[in-house]
Amino acid sequence: MFEFTVQARSGRARTAQFATPRGTVQTPMFMPVGTQGTVKGISPQELTEIGSQMILGNTYHLMLRPGEALVEAHGGLPGFTAYPGPFLTDSGGFQVMSLGHMRKITEEGVVFKSHLDGSLVNLTPERSVQVQEALGADVIMAFDECPPFPAEREYIRASLERTIRWLERCLTIKRKSEQALFAIVQGGIHEDLRQRSLDLTLPFGTPGFAIGGLAVGESKEEMFPAVAFTAERLPENKPRYLMGVGHPEDLVAGIALGVDMFDCVYPTRTGRFGYALTDVGRLNMNSSAPRRQLEPIDPECDCYACRHYTRAYLAHLLRAEEMLAPRMLSLHNLRYLHRLVERAREAISRGQFTEWATEWGDTYFKGQTPEWFRKALHPETARPD
Amino acid sequence: MFEFTVQARSGRARTAQFATPRGTVQTPMFMPVGTQGTVKGISPQELTEIGSQMILGNTYHLMLRPGEALVEAHGGLPGFTAYPGPFLTDSGGFQVMSLGHMRKITEEGVVFKSHLDGSLVNLTPERSVQVQEALGADVIMAFDECPPFPAEREYIRASLERTIRWLERCLTIKRKSEQALFAIVQGGIHEDLRQRSLDLTLPFGTPGFAIGGLAVGESKEEMFPAVAFTAERLPENKPRYLMGVGHPEDLVAGIALGVDMFDCVYPTRTGRFGYALTDVGRLNMNSSAPRRQLEPIDPECDCYACRHYTRAYLAHLLRAEEMLAPRMLSLHNLRYLHRLVERAREAISRGQFTEWATEWGDTYFKGQTPEWFRKALHPETARPD
Repeated sequence: MFEFTVQARSGRARTAQFATPRGTVQTPMFMPVGTQGTVKGISPQELTEIGSQMILGNTYHLMLRPGEALVEAHGGLPGFTAYPGPFLTDSGGFQVMSLGHMRKITEEGVVFKSHLDGSLVNLTPERSVQVQEALGADVIMAFDECPPFPAEREYIRASLERTIRWLERCLTIKRKSEQALFAIVQGGIHEDLRQRSLDLTLPFGTPGFAIGGLAVGESKEEMFPAVAFTAERLPENKPRYLMGVGHPEDLVAGIALGVDMFDCVYPTRTGRFGYALTDVGRLNMNSSAPRRQLEPIDPECDCYACRHYTRAYLAHLLRAEEMLAPRMLSLHNLRYLHRLVERAREAISRGQFTEWATEWGDTYFKGQTPEWFRKALHPETARPD
Repeated sequence: MFEFTVQARSGRARTAQFATPRGTVQTPMFMPVGTQGTVKGISPQELTEIGSQMILGNTYHLMLRPGEALVEAHGGLPGFTAYPGPFLTDSGGFQVMSLGHMRKITEEGVVFKSHLDGSLVNLTPERSVQVQEALGADVIMAFDECPPFPAEREYIRASLERTIRWLERCLTIKRKSEQALFAIVQGGIHEDLRQRSLDLTLPFGTPGFAIGGLAVGESKEEMFPAVAFTAERLPENKPRYLMGVGHPEDLVAGIALGVDMFDCVYPTRTGRFGYALTDVGRLNMNSSAPRRQLEPIDPECDCYACRHYTRAYLAHLLRAEEMLAPRMLSLHNLRYLHRLVERAREAISRGQFTEWATEWGDTYFKGQTPEWFRKALHPETARPD
């Protein structure tokens, strides 16, 4: 269980199988986010059809509403949401920071006011694991603090050390062997702090490791060197999960640096706002041009929207504020990211990931490929195999 | 083409096949409403799966946005919406009355201000047919006036006579033989005016007839005698369409009186508001009870929502304002009405419609079956066959 079997490598990029109790997934993979027990607007049947593998659920939201006991009464997230495949839940830590009001962080944990009704809620490492056990995901996350950006070096250091003590408490309370708990490496964008976090985290030998504390406001020029530094130092034989990322270009760059798992609300959120992801960048379906275009969003795409609808029709639905518009754009965007990682896996299998990613970037950035992306595709130090 | 073949009768109720260019439909049938070129929240694939047969499009909305030319450029509503089966479009007359501002009705037609941008729009019998020809539905409707309720007898009489002159103009301008134009019988709830409208309308011998001017605010006690009176006097060998109706009990009563076709926004609209249709009445999924119920909305229902979700899950989605809630409740409600007419057809085939409908009513009204419903199931005068 939770075996991670690398099948091919191309530079630092790798493709692997990750065995979970609810099925084996193929990495690199993008995980759609089902914050409140649903990937917004999309049915489980559609998730399966578009090639979703593992779905992310949010501990913070689900513990507040409907409460983890109700989810547990359904047999966990698969029974509650009717998605039969693997799930991953976050620890709630990140969302307490971004959504909770008047939060107070102590050694014990976090006290915050619910964004729903203002009630005081206590979230500790122990409670986080208990909630995640009730939610029943295949992969659960250690309760950590993700400091904001920017934060003082001293704060980040103290925080990452407390996160290690919280990790220890998570592992102590955890009871279910059918759930893999991933530790999270922190340290912001500072190499010495990342190294410190790695030194303290790796000895726990959890079945996977996450790169946390990024995509919180820093630039791509700051973020990707931190990804490169951290990913390179994580074990070869365990999955690496870059949390809360992302955009198409971030997936390609992350894969180049050896990342295996990604999640982000971006494809569904930007879809609800009327944007469609393509190889030539993001189309604004709210603009006037698509209203007269009788071609699909992307003729190469095999999603339901691209097989059935013109841009003109989808643009009409958007203007008319019809529910089918956000539904179809979300579906397309998720399928776009799944196809992107499928193409990346295929290129890795051929041993030509860098070539494929360079060509993809040339098209995507329209010949203006930024330096951070180029650097991610060509990390100076090749990891010794 | 447009042949209507009665296959079985039970009292005044009948089941028939109605042949249209895009496929043969089985009546009695309920037509989901796709006002702006989409049944709100539901994909064409889902419509097919739940047993939808003919979809209604609204001339008023589509001519204003995106304009009929764009729909025509897609090959009409089937190409635009990707629903491959038969369509019916209304004439726009009814919605000008309910949505247009500062409308002015003359012998020529109606001038109104668009509810979208306030621009002045002219809708005449000729323009209505031309728009409907561009939209390309299989069944199109004559441009009529549907007087409000209540209205003066004299107004209703003058209006129904003008509607006849408009019908004549519609038939004169109509060019496409692959579209059946249905005439609409008006006359409010007055038998003599209904008779007058019938006398003037029937000689046109259109391939189907609609009962218009009802479900506009009158009580069920006023409406159903008017349905009974009109339906009984329409030809046996042509479809009868009761416009803008409706609720489950209205479908059962209408079928008892010999109606073949129904349409209404009710199942999708009430679904979006959080209500689920069942044989024991409408469930309010916003109330507190469903939040803890681990059973489906209706264990007898075969819709996606009932096969996959508990009431507790759907109630959670509603509280969390998740898009999947209106989508799933709309889907269930449409399937409920389709199943209802399927059961009605089956009872008619067995020659036991009244028995089935009585039993259905006993459950639905919880033993308090209203007089108007009982009367509809037992019309005093049996139609001579």
